Formats: sequence, structure tokens, C-alpha cells
Amino acid sequence: MPEPTSIEIFELGDFQLSTGFTLNNAKLAYRTHGSLNEAKDNAVLFPHFLAGSPDSLEMYIGEGRPFDPRKYFIILPGLFGGGLSSSPSNTSIPFNQGNFPDTHIADDVIAQHRLLTEKFGIQQLKLVLGWSVGALQTYEWAVRFPDMVKRAASIAGAPKPSPWTVLWLRTVIEEPIIADPGWNNGFYTDPQAVQAGLRRVGHGAAMTLPQVGFYRDELWRSIGFSSVDDFVARFWEAFWLPLDPNNLVAQARKTRTADPSGGGDIAEALGRIKAEMFVYAFTGDRMFQPEECKVDSQRIPNAKFEEIGGVSGHLTTFGLTEKDRQVMDEILTKLLTD
Amino acid sequence: MPEPTSIEIFELGDFQLSTGFTLNNAKLAYRTHGSLNEAKDNAVLFPHFLAGSPDSLEMYIGEGRPFDPRKYFIILPGLFGGGLSSSPSNTSIPFNQGNFPDTHIADDVIAQHRLLTEKFGIQQLKLVLGWSVGALQTYEWAVRFPDMVKRAASIAGAPKPSPWTVLWLRTVIEEPIIADPGWNNGFYTDPQAVQAGLRRVGHGAAMTLPQVGFYRDELWRSIGFSSVDDFVARFWEAFWLPLDPNNLVAQARKTRTADPSGGGDIAEALGRIKAEMFVYAFTGDRMFQPEECKVDSQRIPNAKFEEIGGVSGHLTTFGLTEKDRQVMDEILTKLLTD
Repeated sequence: MPEPTSIEIFELGDFQLSTGFTLNNAKLAYRTHGSLNEAKDNAVLFPHFLAGSPDSLEMYIGEGRPFDPRKYFIILPGLFGGGLSSSPSNTSIPFNQGNFPDTHIADDVIAQHRLLTEKFGIQQLKLVLGWSVGALQTYEWAVRFPDMVKRAASIAGAPKPSPWTVLWLRTVIEEPIIADPGWNNGFYTDPQAVQAGLRRVGHGAAMTLPQVGFYRDELWRSIGFSSVDDFVARFWEAFWLPLDPNNLVAQARKTRTADPSGGGDIAEALGRIKAEMFVYAFTGDRMFQPEECKVDSQRIPNAKFEEIGGVSGHLTTFGLTEKDRQVMDEILTKLLTD
Repeated sequence: MPEPTSIEIFELGDFQLSTGFTLNNAKLAYRTHGSLNEAKDNAVLFPHFLAGSPDSLEMYIGEGRPFDPRKYFIILPGLFGGGLSSSPSNTSIPFNQGNFPDTHIADDVIAQHRLLTEKFGIQQLKLVLGWSVGALQTYEWAVRFPDMVKRAASIAGAPKPSPWTVLWLRTVIEEPIIADPGWNNGFYTDPQAVQAGLRRVGHGAAMTLPQVGFYRDELWRSIGFSSVDDFVARFWEAFWLPLDPNNLVAQARKTRTADPSGGGDIAEALGRIKAEMFVYAFTGDRMFQPEECKVDSQRIPNAKFEEIGGVSGHLTTFGLTEKDRQVMDEILTKLLTD
């Protein structure tokens, strides 16, 4: 078994975005674990969530973990705007920083498709999965390349963001950043000039991501914090502060426009999915509400829906509590049980 | 029956705040409807919510309305910081604008008590009621002056804000305002210099106050809006834009510190209430969650708790839908039915 790779770069050349711009020397960053077998049928694609990175998903990979690299070839791609693939933070003029063009989830999936087919010669994925923005990519994959996805799983996710989630992306992610005087239209000289805004992103996330009752029951105690303010500072502010403000805004805008139907009929688009699909929702997840996830699943020919309670709403995917980690492990392990 | 009065001012003189500062020539604004009877036992005190004013409550008063001025003497006091009573916006140096001292809900209640006793000679209130910050005042009244409150009602409220609500006050109200460059430490020359911040307050409120499902079910359609963005602009931004930024920050900070136990044992404090008390909570109100309101009611010797579903969560008190208005009317009407 090969060691997991460091971040590698797949050169996309002059890559035409769905927004009409062309990114010269566009880059798709990725990391792999395990190796592709001779039949090329053991590939698992695991794209990441907003503000995440390939590294954010490593905890689920390893011997005795849900994704065993002795059996599977696990590919962790980075998002455009995520900081490793082409992003505002690493692109040169004219598309540097505040002038990076909008990208769509479809662009990410098209780039990932090129990596899989051109670099690895993969014809079919054993599994595509992700949560939150990772789930948006999963749906885009299942709709856009139906023959290439054998199995897919959306965890705390949807094909497109709900109207509430669109409001959240604007209010919690974009506005605190772009309202910071240090933002300077995205042309700050140091990302930390926008740190007051990034902290406020953390406050909005702290307010909206935990399940109702989290603060009432003082669940921050059980995960090592001494007060609400301590949890907000050491967990939520600390989570956002290292991230590049332009990259976050790029990811938020991309998330807002995600739509595998391309502005068409979403029910019809989901009806074209050929993958065996698993749709998991968490009780109390306001971002991707179980009622809405269930409707998504009913539009897919071969889908199973499950709502899981007693966990931390959208925050479940962060695996902060023992119960959340256990539920995430169980879900992921089941996905590769034939 | 006398006509309702315009806003009147009760001069409090040099009023010592619980925060240690003295407001010279402090003013308590109020409006009344109806007249005090000879026995002085028909007074209803109805303090207002955050960002409200005495005028916000007029819709419940009138012939054929829950509070009939032919029978009751209804007193609508204004909050310190509300813009009509002493506030950042109307106080002269040294306590003008950004240097207005913090006030507590207890200060409001003490000022109201002086109005009722000194100006009107009222010994006992037939009813004190309010929602949200109006409910904070109601609890403070019932604990601080137990013999003076015959009946009290908290609607979508609590004796003190929950930890989530504290986070909300900071994140949704204070931070968007004080992060606006036009804020200038509270020493703007025109409140509209802070309008970008006030609009963002509206976005946070739009995101957090309606019940889960409001946007999914497109309930904005039924109340006259053509899209989520239209609802956010014409309802939520329009609600906050006319308000003075310093006044809002003053109200948010006051709300955060509300506590009728004065930092002591809240269960013991509520145990001292002598009023017959009604505690109403709305399903889906994240600000004052029914589970929490129920616990409050259980600490009061003579309280009835009721959770009402099928309405608009915390937004119910705004009476935007026919159902919400009907429920509010029913609750208020019952309060004066012996």
C-alpha cells in the first residue's frame, strides 16, 4: 500500500468556466490514499465542504477507518476557491484576489471528471460522497455523469441550497467579510487585515450551525470549553481565522448558485440519476432540513433516505462529540458494505 | 372615554442607573389609552419589545380589540434607549450618542414604577404583559414588585435571555452596526451613515426570526412579497433602517444583561412572584424556546404554561399572517377574562 500522497496538482490548462471566463493554467489540487486496482473499480471520490480542504477528510481514512486504503483508491479533490486548486489567493492577474471569476459547482465536477478520466483512466466510481458543499458536488456528479457513478451519498446536503441557506451564505459568510474596512474590495495585502470580519463569520456560524438546545444544554462543556464565549473564540473564530477572505467569498457565491439542473427542472434532473443513492439528514440541521432532503431522495429513482436524530444538526459532520463521530463512522462504513 | 394621549414625558429628575451613572433630567416617555377608574384597579402596563415603541402596540387597543380603553387604563411605556425615553439619540453631553451609559431592564421597571405610583397613585396593576424584551420587563416587574402585580403574562419571552439569545444579540444586532465604518464609535453625524450595518441587521433577523420552513414554504408570498430578496428588503431592511444605531446597540446590551435575580438564583427569584402568571411560547421560536419557557413557568408558584403551534415562531408577535394575528388576539383577550 503506497503512503498517502501529498497535495498534487492536476494541470487543467486553459480551463473554460461556466461563467464564461477562461482560467489560464488552471489547477486542480487533490490528494489520494491507496491505489487504483487493475480493474479500476475501487475508486472513491470524496470532495470537501465549504471552508474545508482535502485534509479535513483524512480522519475517515485509514486501516480500521471507514475508508480503508488497502481496499480503496480514495481521491480527495480541492474546490476551486478552496485555496489549493485555482483560487483568488493563488491566481495571478487579471484574476487575482478580488477579481477572481465566479465558479460553479459544475466547474469543479468537470475538472474532477478530467482528473479521473485523463489522469487515472477511471470509467466508473465505486462511490462519490460528501457533506454540505461536498454533497452539492456529489449531486452534480450523479446528474452530470450518471453512467460514471455507481453509488453516491449525500450527507447533510442537497442538490442545491435552500432559500434559507442562500440567506445564510449571504448573511453569515459574505457580508461580515465584505463589510470589514480591511476587505478593500478584496485587495487586502494581508488576509489578517480582515480578521474582524472573519471572527464575525465565526459568530454567525456559532449561532446557526449547532442544533437547537446545544447552548441550553451547555454541550460545549462536554467538548472541552469553559463558557459560550470560550467556545465561540477557541472553536469558531479559530476555525475561520486562518482562511483567506476572498476564498471564502468565492466558495459562498459558488454554493449559492449550485444547481445540477442548470436552472431547469430539478425534479427532472434528479430523475436522471442512475447511481444507487443514499441521502442522510440530521434532525435539527437547519441548513439541510430533513424534510427537504427527503423530497430530494424521492425524486431519485434508486435512493434511500434516512434521518438520524440525537446528533448535533449540521454540526454533526464536524464530529465534535463522541456520538457524532460514531454516527459519521457508521454512515460512512455502511456506504461501502455491499 | 378620553382620546389616547400623544407621547407624554414623565420627568425622572436625576435618575441613578443600576450601572452607577446618574442621568440628569432623565425622561420616561409613555402613552396611555382610557382612564384610570376611581378604585385605580383597571391599569394595564404594556411595555414594548426591542426596536419597538409604544406605538408598536396600538394595534391591540381599541373598541372590539383585546384591550378596550372604555374598560381599562392602558399604559405604554418607552424603554430607556428606545428613542423616546432617555436614549443615546436624545441625551446631551456627556452621555450623548456613543457614550450613553448602559441601562438595565431593572432601571426601566424602576422608572415605570415611579410613573405609576407618583403620577397616577396606582397601588396594583391589573395586568403587566409583554413579548420578547417586553416580557423581560414583565418578569422584572413580577419579581421586583410582587405585591403590585395582580396578573402578568410573558409572551414569547423569559426572565432573562438564553445563551443562544445572548449570542444572537451580539451577532445579529450589535456587530453589524459597530462593524460599519460609518459607526465611528457611535459618533456619526447622521444615523443613515450606518445604513449598511442596519440593513445587515435586517438580514440576520430575516435569517433567524421566522420559523423553520418559512422560506421552504415560501410564506412570504402570502404576506405580499414577490421573492425572498423582496421580503428581506421591503420588510426586514425597512424595519431596521429608520432606527437609530446607538439606540439599537443600547437596547441589545440591556437585553443581554436582563436578570430579575440580579445575578443570583433565578429559580428562587421566580419563586417570589405573587402574580397569577401566564407564560405563552410559540413552537419554533428559537429566541425563547418553549422547553425553556416551560421551565420558567414551573418555577413560578401560580403560573400556567401554554405552547402554541402552527404559528410563525418568534415572528408570531409581529402578526404578519392572519393566523398569527388571530392567535395574538386570542391570547391577549383571554388575559383580561376573569
